[in-house]
Amino acid sequence: MNKGVVLLSGGLDSATTLYYAKKQRFKVSCLIFNYGQRHKKEIERAKKIAKKAKCDYRVVNFQMPWLGSSLLDKKKKLPNRTEIKKGEIPSTYVPARNIIFLSFAASFSEVIGAKAIFIGANVIDYSGYPDCRCDFINAYQKMLGCGTKAGVEGNKIKILTPLIKLNKEEIIRLALKLKVPLELTWSCYKGEKKPCGVCDSCRLRKRGFEKVGIKDPAE
Amino acid sequence: MNKGVVLLSGGLDSATTLYYAKKQRFKVSCLIFNYGQRHKKEIERAKKIAKKAKCDYRVVNFQMPWLGSSLLDKKKKLPNRTEIKKGEIPSTYVPARNIIFLSFAASFSEVIGAKAIFIGANVIDYSGYPDCRCDFINAYQKMLGCGTKAGVEGNKIKILTPLIKLNKEEIIRLALKLKVPLELTWSCYKGEKKPCGVCDSCRLRKRGFEKVGIKDPAE
Repeated sequence: MNKGVVLLSGGLDSATTLYYAKKQRFKVSCLIFNYGQRHKKEIERAKKIAKKAKCDYRVVNFQMPWLGSSLLDKKKKLPNRTEIKKGEIPSTYVPARNIIFLSFAASFSEVIGAKAIFIGANVIDYSGYPDCRCDFINAYQKMLGCGTKAGVEGNKIKILTPLIKLNKEEIIRLALKLKVPLELTWSCYKGEKKPCGVCDSCRLRKRGFEKVGIKDPAE
Repeated sequence: MNKGVVLLSGGLDSATTLYYAKKQRFKVSCLIFNYGQRHKKEIERAKKIAKKAKCDYRVVNFQMPWLGSSLLDKKKKLPNRTEIKKGEIPSTYVPARNIIFLSFAASFSEVIGAKAIFIGANVIDYSGYPDCRCDFINAYQKMLGCGTKAGVEGNKIKILTPLIKLNKEEIIRLALKLKVPLELTWSCYKGEKKPCGVCDSCRLRKRGFEKVGIKDPAE
């Protein structure tokens, strides 16, 4: 079995990606990030999901002292979905977040000899973050090929984005097919007792479940 | 004045890069990494160098739980320069280290609106690490252009490598010209009271000073 590293946030997309990677017969290790996000709750959910999937996981802890995002800076207001203008990158964008996450994943993959990094980025029902798009992933892939020992020695680490072109409805349908424990996933940016229902992440999730026509099992 | 971020390890090369960036009239902020390296001593030196240069600095703390390098894993033996075969990437290689460092620098640069990231990588008297070479830097640059808000909005962050083609002798000569406080720099991987004199980093430094024909002021 080939080894694979899955970036696991505890949300719907990354959990589905994890189960997809397992279905593809990868021996999966999960990477979970504790980076000062408001919704720390997702970290506990991610651990539960990894355990449920019988995969090992590592938690990487770091802080970005410069904040620069309403997802990290509690003094900033989290925007509701309706407050975000079309085409605008919302204030929840964490500068270079996926670049940082993938960098740790690259390091981990080199050390354990993983052949693939799975990331649940998708570009249909998403928040417009530049580090979720195909051209970014492709550019990152090229950079990895020449910037790592694995790359220069010909042991290519592939970045795989199984959800990249799926909309939220399709992701949920895939999750149901793969028996993802959706009740454990957490998407709300606020990270309070219950999902707020109005942040960008809640609204994307809500609309997805409405389109599938089922109740969100996490509610 | 344009803002610039300098990756500052506390070694000879990064200190010279910092003074070079200042000479180029950048308003410099330094990034220092505490990532579980053996030679923690370099962190204190980096802070001193930043203060001496009258630049602000941020320290980013993280651990890579997977280690994978003799520079992080004290159970592994640090190789002497003479034990490293030609063309081999030595065990001191930290998987994806510069990729991770640059990723944090990209995030910081976006937040403060920096126009450039300075890194002291060089490919003549170096340890063969793949993440120090020109093609890696170029690929990283391209990836940044499409993976950050700054990039997609046309506020390009340039990665600058003023030392990339200098040998150690030339770097020391440049440092002397720029009045780099060489006495504060620390290169030894071991991080004990005095430099060991036999690790790869010590040997490269030693040979450089011999070629310049002066005593290393840090000794």
